[in-house]
Amino acid sequence: MAKVERLALIGLGLIGGSLSLALKKNELVGEVVGYSRQLPTRLRALELGLIDRPADSVAEAVRGADVVFIATPVQAMGSVFQAMATALEPHALVTDGGSVKGSVVAAAKAALPCAQWAQFVPGHPIAGTERSGPDAAFASLFVDHRVILTPLPENSAALVARAVALWESVGAVVEQMAVQHHDHVLAATSHLPHLAAFGMVSALSRLEERYEVFRYAAGGFRDFTRIASSDPQMWRDICVANRDELLPMLDHYLDELLRLRHLIDAGDSAGIERLFVDAKAVREALYQPAQAHPD
Amino acid sequence: MAKVERLALIGLGLIGGSLSLALKKNELVGEVVGYSRQLPTRLRALELGLIDRPADSVAEAVRGADVVFIATPVQAMGSVFQAMATALEPHALVTDGGSVKGSVVAAAKAALPCAQWAQFVPGHPIAGTERSGPDAAFASLFVDHRVILTPLPENSAALVARAVALWESVGAVVEQMAVQHHDHVLAATSHLPHLAAFGMVSALSRLEERYEVFRYAAGGFRDFTRIASSDPQMWRDICVANRDELLPMLDHYLDELLRLRHLIDAGDSAGIERLFVDAKAVREALYQPAQAHPD
Repeated sequence: MAKVERLALIGLGLIGGSLSLALKKNELVGEVVGYSRQLPTRLRALELGLIDRPADSVAEAVRGADVVFIATPVQAMGSVFQAMATALEPHALVTDGGSVKGSVVAAAKAALPCAQWAQFVPGHPIAGTERSGPDAAFASLFVDHRVILTPLPENSAALVARAVALWESVGAVVEQMAVQHHDHVLAATSHLPHLAAFGMVSALSRLEERYEVFRYAAGGFRDFTRIASSDPQMWRDICVANRDELLPMLDHYLDELLRLRHLIDAGDSAGIERLFVDAKAVREALYQPAQAHPD
Repeated sequence: MAKVERLALIGLGLIGGSLSLALKKNELVGEVVGYSRQLPTRLRALELGLIDRPADSVAEAVRGADVVFIATPVQAMGSVFQAMATALEPHALVTDGGSVKGSVVAAAKAALPCAQWAQFVPGHPIAGTERSGPDAAFASLFVDHRVILTPLPENSAALVARAVALWESVGAVVEQMAVQHHDHVLAATSHLPHLAAFGMVSALSRLEERYEVFRYAAGGFRDFTRIASSDPQMWRDICVANRDELLPMLDHYLDELLRLRHLIDAGDSAGIERLFVDAKAVREALYQPAQAHPD
């Protein structure tokens, strides 16, 4: 990849910070200028070396940058697009890390002047941990992880190629798909499981005997609920932004739980076993035994 | 603990095999005689050193044993109690590893002669992995894990003390509680999460676009569904055996998911965030940050 001369980083958390660290580690970026709404976050990002220079506004960060990466919660992206419009360089690639693509594309379309619209190549790195904020960033986050780009019809092939090269330079495996397809697939494997995990912890914490109950939570529960330690604001935004795909997927899950409820209520051992056997087989086909671990 | 002269192991999987390995490692057992319905399992357990001698029947395994440990799926325990009645030594401690206690106690009461009923101290080690079978056993499985005993009113204090000492000798932390309380607490933190995980994988595998969907399953999904790789027969039995506690707990979870559904449908960002913030706080209070890990 041609070196990024100046990267503008909007949003200085796990995703943005990790992209910066990865580019710096590979000596693929000249200067990183960063903006986050909170001053302490900007200062902390500077201190951690995620950015070389803090900016006081989106426009200031974007000015002179050849690559702009937006890694804020998705609900904030509309105002970011708005704020950058006056300052964006005509040769700049704009891309983002939002977990929902439909709402981000709509926000960009509403905010960006027509002349800049084609500069935006929407993206989503399928990587993350349950930790968030600048301190959570690390350079190897994207290595061997998928990044999905959902290019717009207006993007030039050359611009899309720059976005692909950017992600491949930090070790990611890049794929391209349509915006809505992305939002559907991610609703299933990411957004719904997060809902289910947040919902599980929330349900148990409403039990009167919750203190007693939680004392016996073991390793299985810890893993099952790990994603319920994810950033609440980020996931709030995702739920709202991807509502149209998420709600039918949630209903599909509720149907399945009701099916299981019926089998248990009827004492249908064979039916329960069939469902469990099938689920186990599907899951094991997904993950190598090497990734299984005790406790 | 006084050494176990002869341990009868009924059920030669992860739990039974691990108890045997742990006792052997600590030189706390003379001979281990094992029975499993399947001959290949008995031979494999012998080969792995989980048992010193295979028995051809429950009665043969139990004869001459001073400790009998039943580690079969819970639905099989009734016939195990029945089969041991003629051969059980009067001084033998009988205990089990079943994940449900109410149904096991009822099965024991129905099957054991009155004279032997008081010899049974029900137990449940809160330990396991998603792997099962004799090959999954390992000696340190119970170290620092909780074991819940649910003693019967008819158990002598001395007998309960033997059961406590047995588990403490392999590194477990033993607690005692009432049978129904056990089943209620475990329905919440173990049985319900397993249902939810099996149900999630099953729901997604019913999607027409399942192959495409599963391609994008990442680390969060892997951990969330790890328990859906658990033994289907064991979990089928648990669902049936603990139906009375599990169904109300499942309904409680469904209520919570419907509450979340309503918040998302209404676009109630503040309500969603409050629920996520609270869930994250509850979960993080449960687990030390040191146990969090990337990917």
